[in-house]
Amino acid sequence: MTNGKLILLRHGQSEWNASNQFTGWVDVNLTEQGEAEAKRGGELLVESGVLPSVVYTSLLRRAIRTANIALNAADRHWIPVIRDWRLNERHYGALQGLDKAETKEKYGDEQFMEWRRSYDTPPPELADDAEFSQANDVRYADLETVPRTECLQDVVVRFVPYFEEEILPRAKKGETVLIAAHGNSLRALVKHLDGISDADIAELNIPTGIPLVYEIASDGSVVNPGGTYLDPEAAAAGAAAVANQGNK
Amino acid sequence: MTNGKLILLRHGQSEWNASNQFTGWVDVNLTEQGEAEAKRGGELLVESGVLPSVVYTSLLRRAIRTANIALNAADRHWIPVIRDWRLNERHYGALQGLDKAETKEKYGDEQFMEWRRSYDTPPPELADDAEFSQANDVRYADLETVPRTECLQDVVVRFVPYFEEEILPRAKKGETVLIAAHGNSLRALVKHLDGISDADIAELNIPTGIPLVYEIASDGSVVNPGGTYLDPEAAAAGAAAVANQGNK
Repeated sequence: MTNGKLILLRHGQSEWNASNQFTGWVDVNLTEQGEAEAKRGGELLVESGVLPSVVYTSLLRRAIRTANIALNAADRHWIPVIRDWRLNERHYGALQGLDKAETKEKYGDEQFMEWRRSYDTPPPELADDAEFSQANDVRYADLETVPRTECLQDVVVRFVPYFEEEILPRAKKGETVLIAAHGNSLRALVKHLDGISDADIAELNIPTGIPLVYEIASDGSVVNPGGTYLDPEAAAAGAAAVANQGNK
Repeated sequence: MTNGKLILLRHGQSEWNASNQFTGWVDVNLTEQGEAEAKRGGELLVESGVLPSVVYTSLLRRAIRTANIALNAADRHWIPVIRDWRLNERHYGALQGLDKAETKEKYGDEQFMEWRRSYDTPPPELADDAEFSQANDVRYADLETVPRTECLQDVVVRFVPYFEEEILPRAKKGETVLIAAHGNSLRALVKHLDGISDADIAELNIPTGIPLVYEIASDGSVVNPGGTYLDPEAAAAGAAAVANQGNK
């Protein structure tokens, strides 16, 4: 049997990536550059012959539109779609909407990096009546509790069991699954797939719009640890750009 | 309990609507006008407060993109999506790809209208090795037989049982369901919903991009026979334009 594949695709540049604001669960749109990245992502799938038979997305517009644009470019617009909040970006708590450079200046480098990269310390909670709260968003009406903030560990706890139950079995059967999601939900997944420690995951940055492919054997193990970027040069440049966020 | 709703949305103008060619299962894209129609369709949903909780689409790009664009405009991009070939446009057989006006001139008004509007006479079959055949299209690999041509009755036979089993139960439970599909698959559905005769359905034309809403009681009956267009004036003009296809 052919090995299955997971294609991890971080959404292209969003409006708040461009304006350097913490986004989290705020449902901002892609920029034109983000749309172009998504299209390029789809073209890379075609060029590499890695064509998904099913797509999973978060409930956020930037990941959904990235999937739509990439799949349209790859002539795979017609595959089944499953959306789930567990693929959402990390909820950024009270930081949602704040300017990253101003936040860094105000709270200092150490606190800033702890909020961005600490594995188990979430930012302060976002108040339910705050402008950028999702406490009353209809799309989360079925959740027992809508998050008010999350650390990366919280994302691992909500996403990895869903991945194991819903997504991995498809890859084990030989399917190619596209996962269109976010910087931190994909970091949570990569941490799990590659067995990265709580400390080392801080250093991992995932670039936007470049498919990262993991080959999965029928027992669920990863055949190519670390995964394979379909455009390695662009991926390296993109990861460096993510690491520099917060700098003016 | 609130009544459920079905929102029927015919895709916006496609490349072959614009060039006046028979399309059927050929997977052409929307034009810019078609994209604008889809966006307007989504805005009408918001203005009318008719917001779907789930969307069904065909496997064809023009309906899928219409749904994506309309839902994005309606801030409902995050709802569950189900795609099924049974919502596809009628397969136009050997006419797929032909110019409508040339076909009318070559075969005469009577034959032309029979192919377009006869209930039970399909056009000649399309050869499997023809340019616009879908016989080897991977998205239909699971079908026992890929159609080589269809009359409207064939569409009724494939689509209505699926509708009754998969879509109607949701409306009976009070859900609002968006059905993003095609001129003839939606004519098949309207024929069923409104109990239109095999003869009278020939006169029914459905405009592009304007949501047509049927209210459904918990017993599955239609509360508003004929349905309600969210923009009745534009719908009347659009239906007249469809009726005139084939004229130069």
